[in-house]
Amino acid sequence: MNDLEYMRLALELAERGAGWTAPNPMVGAVIVKDGRVIGQGWHETYGGFHAERNALRSCTEPPQGGTMYVTLEPCCHHGKQPPCVDAVLEAGIRRVVTGSDDPNPLVAGKGIRTLREHGVCITEHVLREECDRLNQVFFHYIQTREPFVVMKYAMTLDGKIAAYTGASKWITGEEARRHVMTQRHRYSGIMAGVGTVLADDPLLTCRIEGGKNPIRIICDSRLRTPLTAQVVKTAKETPTILATCNADKERHAVYQQAGCTVLAVPEKSGCVDLKELMKELGRYGIDSILLEGGGTLNWAALESGIVQKIQAYIAPKLFGGREAKTPVEGRGFHSPDAAVFLKDSVITRLGEDFLVESEVRQDVYRAH
Amino acid sequence: MNDLEYMRLALELAERGAGWTAPNPMVGAVIVKDGRVIGQGWHETYGGFHAERNALRSCTEPPQGGTMYVTLEPCCHHGKQPPCVDAVLEAGIRRVVTGSDDPNPLVAGKGIRTLREHGVCITEHVLREECDRLNQVFFHYIQTREPFVVMKYAMTLDGKIAAYTGASKWITGEEARRHVMTQRHRYSGIMAGVGTVLADDPLLTCRIEGGKNPIRIICDSRLRTPLTAQVVKTAKETPTILATCNADKERHAVYQQAGCTVLAVPEKSGCVDLKELMKELGRYGIDSILLEGGGTLNWAALESGIVQKIQAYIAPKLFGGREAKTPVEGRGFHSPDAAVFLKDSVITRLGEDFLVESEVRQDVYRAH
Repeated sequence: MNDLEYMRLALELAERGAGWTAPNPMVGAVIVKDGRVIGQGWHETYGGFHAERNALRSCTEPPQGGTMYVTLEPCCHHGKQPPCVDAVLEAGIRRVVTGSDDPNPLVAGKGIRTLREHGVCITEHVLREECDRLNQVFFHYIQTREPFVVMKYAMTLDGKIAAYTGASKWITGEEARRHVMTQRHRYSGIMAGVGTVLADDPLLTCRIEGGKNPIRIICDSRLRTPLTAQVVKTAKETPTILATCNADKERHAVYQQAGCTVLAVPEKSGCVDLKELMKELGRYGIDSILLEGGGTLNWAALESGIVQKIQAYIAPKLFGGREAKTPVEGRGFHSPDAAVFLKDSVITRLGEDFLVESEVRQDVYRAH
Repeated sequence: MNDLEYMRLALELAERGAGWTAPNPMVGAVIVKDGRVIGQGWHETYGGFHAERNALRSCTEPPQGGTMYVTLEPCCHHGKQPPCVDAVLEAGIRRVVTGSDDPNPLVAGKGIRTLREHGVCITEHVLREECDRLNQVFFHYIQTREPFVVMKYAMTLDGKIAAYTGASKWITGEEARRHVMTQRHRYSGIMAGVGTVLADDPLLTCRIEGGKNPIRIICDSRLRTPLTAQVVKTAKETPTILATCNADKERHAVYQQAGCTVLAVPEKSGCVDLKELMKELGRYGIDSILLEGGGTLNWAALESGIVQKIQAYIAPKLFGGREAKTPVEGRGFHSPDAAVFLKDSVITRLGEDFLVESEVRQDVYRAH
């Protein structure tokens, strides 16, 4: 095996932390000696050991003189855990191969420099793109302190998220719907509009074994969510945040008694000011949000410039219908040149359906 | 090389006839002797030599005792050309390997049987699926005598074919637009609605070097196409058919003088009866149509059950807009279960865009 292959193994290990490390990054580490893998570890959960220490602790023979592959530059500062650089040096690792740089401008490069100063051989940026992509949420959150927002929708090949009657069960098949559940596990929050609550009364939980429920955020400018809605009734087990422009404290109290958190947010064009809401949710520690909105909320999100990524599940079906709902509605952009442009599209087949994941091109993306 | 590889070569040769053989099939043939390719040919153009004869004519050494790979069962009847079976036997070919069966129920299996009776070794159905797919137009047309209809549209990842203002230049990038031109070359006819003519005044020609223009078919129930429209002005060089419910012979004569063919077709729900139109165009010798309609015509086409295939070009952009046009409009299907279901989707990347090609599942497709 070569550097690329060991790093790929470290990436696979890192991925196992998905959904559990937030707001920390996912990190994987592999220790190799004389061409044999002698240690493997990953950052398993927020507050727990970092990947480097877990790999060292797992070693089947002394790591002295070995090489460590780690997907992210080792830390050199005290956080919930002592610095990993110290552990690497103490263990007598001779060479360190890294993927991503530490995105924190205060410490970036410092871990690597310390290791080098102590005579450790360094190879940087192996599979950097893959390593960076793995932690795009972490990188975004640490730099902006706002959640990374993924706009998710399921549509037919003619761009409909429901038939003209509103019927939408189901657009996609089982495999795609299961994939959505893995995404709900992966992100810290899930956001929908009150329209979706009124129409479908969804639970918005992660229904897979061993899955973690995201914090539910309902955009409800006028506080119309029924107290009998599932997201309210289950708020004591699974946190629900109601984001509203309604300032009536007594009305808030009703929801608070039911276990909901009510966030008062300024209004913007008749809707919750989503940019302000993101700042608030960021302070709340929410690093990522899966936006499962309808066309109106999706448009407001695009318009306010909070969206980083699109996940479009596309089913090989045609609904037709001039009145059938589409994934992004609202006013819309007036010309193709003014559109939101996407990049780095990745297409995955999920049974008969497929998933298109694209990044929003922030360089040409202005709030309109 | 083995049978599969030689057949793949024959398929590549067959493909070179794309756009020129209609209403004949595309066929390729390879002759192999002692492990060397000694002859290659394909059906180059309607009325010309069949692939088998072209391959035999191209042989660089005597074909006696050789093996012929041919993508379609050799014919055994006199058409524009004498039977290929005779040519194969005369040449002393020892073994014949075929892909598709002859779809004509009157002759299917007869070519193979004749060869076998003359002591030729036969291997059938090598890469059959690929060979069948190559000639899906031919197979459809010979069995139904109606054109194979491909519904083509370009949309954004949020399912819009134009911004809310109607602006649609451009949805996709250059590579995808070039690909559309190769499709216009490939199919015999191109169909659009009068709405598209009024809005965009398109030429609907194939603008690639060495390309062939399709016959233009305009669905214009009330004959509103302006005499100044490009499709009318150029009708003397590139055939234009106007399909209309307007029975006024004097009005027809005006377009006929300009070089157009006017087809009077019954009306159905305020539009040209597309099923009837297909029968008429089939009699006219048009074996395939690229439908470049707007949402209304596309819906009428789906509703009348004439569509065999979808080509959706998808651009990584979002337009938004409740009023923005989508690929299929009209009334629409009332529930997901009543939708048009697609199968065998193939996804191709074209620059930053991608193309989804899917077959309509005729087994669950009823005219609604």
